[in-house]
Amino acid sequence: MPKGGGLARARAITEIYSIKSELLNAPDLATRFYEAEHDNNLSPWQQANVREMKRVWQQAIALPIELVKELSMATLETEQAWRQLRQDNNWQDFKPLLEKVVKLSRERSKYLAEIYGCNPYEALMQLYETDFTQEDIDGYFSVLKQEIPPLLEKIKNKQQSETLIPIQGSFDTKIQQTLCVNIMEQLGFDFNHGRLDITHHPFCGGVPEDTRICTRFFEHDFTEAIMATIHETGHGSYEQGLPEEWLEQPVGQSRGMAIHESQSLLFEMQIARSKPFLTFLHPQLQQCFDSSCSNKEALSLDNLLRNYHRIEPGFIRTSADEITYPLHIILRYEIERDLIMGTMQVDDIPERWDRDMQQLLGLSTKGNFKDGCMQDVHWPGGAFGYFPFYTLGAMLAAQLMTSIRDNNDKLDAQLAQGNITAVSHWLKQHIWQKGSFFTSKQLIKEACGSPLTTEAYIRHLTQRYLEDS
Amino acid sequence: MPKGGGLARARAITEIYSIKSELLNAPDLATRFYEAEHDNNLSPWQQANVREMKRVWQQAIALPIELVKELSMATLETEQAWRQLRQDNNWQDFKPLLEKVVKLSRERSKYLAEIYGCNPYEALMQLYETDFTQEDIDGYFSVLKQEIPPLLEKIKNKQQSETLIPIQGSFDTKIQQTLCVNIMEQLGFDFNHGRLDITHHPFCGGVPEDTRICTRFFEHDFTEAIMATIHETGHGSYEQGLPEEWLEQPVGQSRGMAIHESQSLLFEMQIARSKPFLTFLHPQLQQCFDSSCSNKEALSLDNLLRNYHRIEPGFIRTSADEITYPLHIILRYEIERDLIMGTMQVDDIPERWDRDMQQLLGLSTKGNFKDGCMQDVHWPGGAFGYFPFYTLGAMLAAQLMTSIRDNNDKLDAQLAQGNITAVSHWLKQHIWQKGSFFTSKQLIKEACGSPLTTEAYIRHLTQRYLEDS
Repeated sequence: MPKGGGLARARAITEIYSIKSELLNAPDLATRFYEAEHDNNLSPWQQANVREMKRVWQQAIALPIELVKELSMATLETEQAWRQLRQDNNWQDFKPLLEKVVKLSRERSKYLAEIYGCNPYEALMQLYETDFTQEDIDGYFSVLKQEIPPLLEKIKNKQQSETLIPIQGSFDTKIQQTLCVNIMEQLGFDFNHGRLDITHHPFCGGVPEDTRICTRFFEHDFTEAIMATIHETGHGSYEQGLPEEWLEQPVGQSRGMAIHESQSLLFEMQIARSKPFLTFLHPQLQQCFDSSCSNKEALSLDNLLRNYHRIEPGFIRTSADEITYPLHIILRYEIERDLIMGTMQVDDIPERWDRDMQQLLGLSTKGNFKDGCMQDVHWPGGAFGYFPFYTLGAMLAAQLMTSIRDNNDKLDAQLAQGNITAVSHWLKQHIWQKGSFFTSKQLIKEACGSPLTTEAYIRHLTQRYLEDS
Repeated sequence: MPKGGGLARARAITEIYSIKSELLNAPDLATRFYEAEHDNNLSPWQQANVREMKRVWQQAIALPIELVKELSMATLETEQAWRQLRQDNNWQDFKPLLEKVVKLSRERSKYLAEIYGCNPYEALMQLYETDFTQEDIDGYFSVLKQEIPPLLEKIKNKQQSETLIPIQGSFDTKIQQTLCVNIMEQLGFDFNHGRLDITHHPFCGGVPEDTRICTRFFEHDFTEAIMATIHETGHGSYEQGLPEEWLEQPVGQSRGMAIHESQSLLFEMQIARSKPFLTFLHPQLQQCFDSSCSNKEALSLDNLLRNYHRIEPGFIRTSADEITYPLHIILRYEIERDLIMGTMQVDDIPERWDRDMQQLLGLSTKGNFKDGCMQDVHWPGGAFGYFPFYTLGAMLAAQLMTSIRDNNDKLDAQLAQGNITAVSHWLKQHIWQKGSFFTSKQLIKEACGSPLTTEAYIRHLTQRYLEDS
């Protein structure tokens, strides 16, 4: 979208939201939900659809209209101001804005907690994924906090002795784009129901029948665009695989944020960054970029793997590697949980952020708000309760891949041929086609035969970074 | 849009239409219009806004909901069938479908005629442009029917003696696209509020704050894409120039189809195909395409002008030149007028089409339905009353350009520099910024100082094709 179109789009979206809100506040809905819930003639899918409709309705009517407006205005203002204030490293002016968003989000969380019968932070989590409790997250993250830092130490030690040649050169972005389209086709993305376009930040949007993936290309680096595009192809494949007969109903939609992220991370981390798949990609990358690479040795398979598996603690979550990413998440989770529960105040964030960064990643962010607690759009946007699901998605990706592997002893050979048909088939059957028929924990249990744990995830990280190669 | 996304988009549009229809049928609107029309405190723009709102409302409530649905289903079915039937030259199967659309369109026209107090065909015309009567159109077209055929004869004779070298080669579509973007910038298109993209058929869509132009590029011909893009840039400039403070109100919208077409044709026919502007473009075209042109002499300025001014009667309206285009329109206008007025039946169309084609353009379409009466989407889509405004747009473009020229004796020198600032400034002031403040005839009178006539148009055609060069 051209920059100048932003306001018009915002107005159109506001208009649609207000129409939606009016429909959801129709006075006869309570009676109609009661009737539907007591209708014995509904099929299981229809029953699940009623359950999902009711979730949407309950969320919509739970909040006083005044609070919705205030929160919407506060987040719009804070998000807009944040763009500049972050650049200026200006915590002082950001703080009162964030305080207002936190105050209103606490109010919101209390209203939602009543309808869900849970604690306020958990209630906000329900906006992004169903079922999971604060106890679940605390449990998972206490394991990860124990396991990952020593793992990180070992990996850093191991990688110190490896020679890494940086992949440098000037890589035609048209060639990158054509390659990405080819890879998407290889991964089964349906271009009759979707497109690849170019934008500033990678995302996947649209509707299942018209799934739009946008990505970005850098002339100095082709490695990032490929993985970003494959990541979005995971999101897009989930959307394209949703049950056709329920597409416009709540039960036909993707389950939630953790499940969605598990699909993109399964495509990116489990498939694309695996040694077999990179071995398959390697000759294509050589063919496309060998002549533009300033050091030909950089494009050897071994060096490509090292580039894609390099671990390096840094300040910024969005550019973090597979090992340090969950540490970034845990830090944010603990802070936002305590903020919403009221045991911590906005004023305490910078000190707490610095302490935890030092503890988890050995980096100080003292005075560096820009690359510290002001780096993410989530809090200025009021999206508390969202962060933990990034890591639950990574855990689930590993666990799903384990289930797929257990049923397929030729998996690595297939990936080495660039053939992911068996993987897609399994995912379509167990995840994509289920839409929102199950709640999240049911869906995972049905797919894997057991609940989500950290086990497969830790095993995957250990194998990739310490045992293989 | 990827092909497979069509149904989802159709469903979304239907949903929005049904919400719109519900809003327009709110029971208190009659009272509220009465009050607004008797409110003495409204500014002139507010009054015009009420007038425009009422037009939309009257159209919406004039038709029984059953008729709207039937017509919508019939046109959807007929349009879809038409795509295949046209390819198959299958008039027999197309006829009953078109008969149904005509029958329902006649019913529609009678309801609309009541609210507008005019004849049924005129009533359909009001859906696309205000003010113009059947008498106006009959008057204009009887002049054109007299003037253009002898003009066409003279031009054909003149051009027979000219040597025309076809511009052939393989022209990089990326270079064409970059050139088109440069030309759009030169013409003042605001890329902060718009984009150029690629599609199957050129169009201009979006909203004033985000105006989307789509065009198509052929490797074997660069001349078409340039003019198609400039044509759409005329539409886009009108949209981008609408009065900012009224953008989301009926009075802030573009006036109608004749005015809109006058802007695209002013950009394409009056500016871009003029000798001064082509003289300006010529070195850029040479620089871009000289090396890919199979015959270098084809890219001389003289030959470029001859290519862009070539007149050649043909079957197809959309690829017709500036001289024969109005004859295609007159033929369609007379048929659809008589169809809607009931003095002619669908069964009579092929014979009448063939007779008129022979008379106006000297071409027979006997048995050739595909390139004859089945070539346009308008009738299967139920868009009766639309055709005449293409030619009113061409007439108005010439008349506006005459007004601009009368106030600016340096115009040709400016165009020869590629400088259209003075033209845009005049159009913005007299057309774009007026939105729908005036009705169509008022707008033309205010802009030109006199009503629309065929005079400037005939003079333009005579000068370009017989006198200049």
